[in-house]
Amino acid sequence: MVKEKAIIGQSGGPTAVINKSLVGFIKTSVDSFEEVIGARHGLEGMLSRDFVDLKALSESEVYGISRTPAAALGSVRKKPTEDDIEKLIDIFKKEEIRNFFYIGGNDSAETANIILEGSKSLDFEMKVFHIPKTIDNDLLETDHSPGYGSAARFVAHAFQGDDADTRSMKGIKINVLMGRHAGWLTAASMLGKSSKEDGPHLIYVPEKVFNIETFLQEIKDTYKNLGRCVVAVSEGIKNADGEYFLQTYAREGSSELAGKKDSHGNIQLSGSGALGDTLADLVSRELDGARVRADTFGYLQRSFIADVSKVDAEEAERVGSFSVEVCTSNKKEGGSIILLRGDSEEYYCDTDIVELGKVAKGTKEMPENFLSLDKPYVTNDFFEYAMPLTGGIEPKTQLFV
Amino acid sequence: MVKEKAIIGQSGGPTAVINKSLVGFIKTSVDSFEEVIGARHGLEGMLSRDFVDLKALSESEVYGISRTPAAALGSVRKKPTEDDIEKLIDIFKKEEIRNFFYIGGNDSAETANIILEGSKSLDFEMKVFHIPKTIDNDLLETDHSPGYGSAARFVAHAFQGDDADTRSMKGIKINVLMGRHAGWLTAASMLGKSSKEDGPHLIYVPEKVFNIETFLQEIKDTYKNLGRCVVAVSEGIKNADGEYFLQTYAREGSSELAGKKDSHGNIQLSGSGALGDTLADLVSRELDGARVRADTFGYLQRSFIADVSKVDAEEAERVGSFSVEVCTSNKKEGGSIILLRGDSEEYYCDTDIVELGKVAKGTKEMPENFLSLDKPYVTNDFFEYAMPLTGGIEPKTQLFV
Repeated sequence: MVKEKAIIGQSGGPTAVINKSLVGFIKTSVDSFEEVIGARHGLEGMLSRDFVDLKALSESEVYGISRTPAAALGSVRKKPTEDDIEKLIDIFKKEEIRNFFYIGGNDSAETANIILEGSKSLDFEMKVFHIPKTIDNDLLETDHSPGYGSAARFVAHAFQGDDADTRSMKGIKINVLMGRHAGWLTAASMLGKSSKEDGPHLIYVPEKVFNIETFLQEIKDTYKNLGRCVVAVSEGIKNADGEYFLQTYAREGSSELAGKKDSHGNIQLSGSGALGDTLADLVSRELDGARVRADTFGYLQRSFIADVSKVDAEEAERVGSFSVEVCTSNKKEGGSIILLRGDSEEYYCDTDIVELGKVAKGTKEMPENFLSLDKPYVTNDFFEYAMPLTGGIEPKTQLFV
Repeated sequence: MVKEKAIIGQSGGPTAVINKSLVGFIKTSVDSFEEVIGARHGLEGMLSRDFVDLKALSESEVYGISRTPAAALGSVRKKPTEDDIEKLIDIFKKEEIRNFFYIGGNDSAETANIILEGSKSLDFEMKVFHIPKTIDNDLLETDHSPGYGSAARFVAHAFQGDDADTRSMKGIKINVLMGRHAGWLTAASMLGKSSKEDGPHLIYVPEKVFNIETFLQEIKDTYKNLGRCVVAVSEGIKNADGEYFLQTYAREGSSELAGKKDSHGNIQLSGSGALGDTLADLVSRELDGARVRADTFGYLQRSFIADVSKVDAEEAERVGSFSVEVCTSNKKEGGSIILLRGDSEEYYCDTDIVELGKVAKGTKEMPENFLSLDKPYVTNDFFEYAMPLTGGIEPKTQLFV
């Protein structure tokens, strides 16, 4: 036990297992630090001293937190200004908090990096760690991001059910998946396929230019062949000029969507059925009389409590506790925790740490060997990469239709 | 074993456990009938003699079917015409099929009834049974419908995750649930609540007149109190004049929705995010600057494979096998299988049978003692009724936000 204080916050969009990382941190840090402070809503709570005492938790409370999705401490989307940093370091100085932990995605790694640099320039010795999470799986350096495996499991199971449903009812089904920058989660839709005839039959990811004419033609072809077509579409599909399809369409094709923009002028992708409904409308016009439906899986992808990947849950807890171990070992002034996949036949990932700057800001797209030119446009290499992270998806049985 | 043939079809919107009923039927009927025929896509396959031999299935195939959601034989939405009935009875005569089973909702009970009456008037002695299913839980006579428990379980878990997510991010979250005529599934959103502060905070069902001004005011009030508001809305909410809110709104409020009508001129409620997006837009205008999101849970509610209620699965299989037992006991010429709840402290339902006409066409709304005037507008009586059907929902832990 060091006679020091540690503080932790959660940041960005939650995952189903983000609290496992918090619990991994808590379990290890209660024996390592004199005080363990949780900040409500990340940076926001740190700046307003909205603190909770994480040492005061009972074992059953910690167990309860570990089984509850989304950020138990509350989350925030906030990039610190220079003023924020000064204020923050001032609070840390007064409270004598020298160990900082932040659970989040690449924006949170950037925040951690800014805080580490800020503490140096303000002459306050601190250690600063980023604990990774994101269902998008687009963090650099790490083999994969905690949170992805559970989201991928949910999506794979959802497509198994939806493929069976579409076989029952015939027609065309379009499902819109989260992932603004990369197609990792959309690609996971194929993990429950056990034959070529199983859906999804077509997968559209942001890494590949989206062309609406090709899209409509490919659906038409599949529908003609099979009498049904199940399609996975990333919310982040982009046109040849790199603009979100929905943004272009809102300007050129339809005035209905023009109002659905956020404060930065970006069209809102999550928490709305606009993309799915727009695509379904276009398909309906093309295939008159066919049954066309769209679902947007929405926030269930990151918060569904009853179908968590055991592998993901274990790793999420492990990166949390590992961050404390690295911190108290005094070998690093800070960094971002990563997972490294072993070479052995049986899946296993080790934990390691890299510099914060290597993870901050950047995003990792799907590599070329995971994307195929053949339908459904995702390769077996991806299947082998992603399947172990889900904890395994049992194949479904389709015999008659 | 009787030296007779039996035929079975599946009809209407599938459920996560509709195949359990098929499997219950198969397991019992293979020892009861000389031939056991499955028809692809219900009535459609019966009329076109699109048959499969259900006696030929291996044990592992039957096991596989029991674990796959949606209708394994394929489903259909079709009301038989007089011509259809004549053609159908003619096929049954030629094939010597005297035992008819149909898994479906109230429309399917009506179809079964029409076939029973048709066989009488065409002088062909038949037995006709309806095996109940629907996630909507709106079938008459039965305590509840197989399929509802699993859908309710999915919805309760989804709201637990979504409430935690909304606590993390703050703001207003609107979720749209299936159920055109009745609020059973929407009400299930409250089964994961463990405190008053847990979402959903407001529940809107078709049984109660929907008023958009009241809706906006209630969300405003809750948001002001808690900094968040989680709302469950049935796709079937209706105005004072009994018209779907979305239909009125499409005509009066917004031209965007005018095109989204089906061939009967009805606005499409499922497989579209229109209702959720419309409500979210209206809330956004009212609460400028607040984070407002909407999700439409869509077809996942009836097809999600990885979160099935064990109670529901067992009952679904039991009504399937019971239908064969009643048939071969020769006590009834036909009927609809129902579940009857026992009086004992521990939950148990017995199976029984009623006349087809009693189940055909009608729908069962939520009774008054399940609907409250106080928020979130659903009572403890409903909680006690519905919870056992889900197989039990573990409470979640919220300590900090």
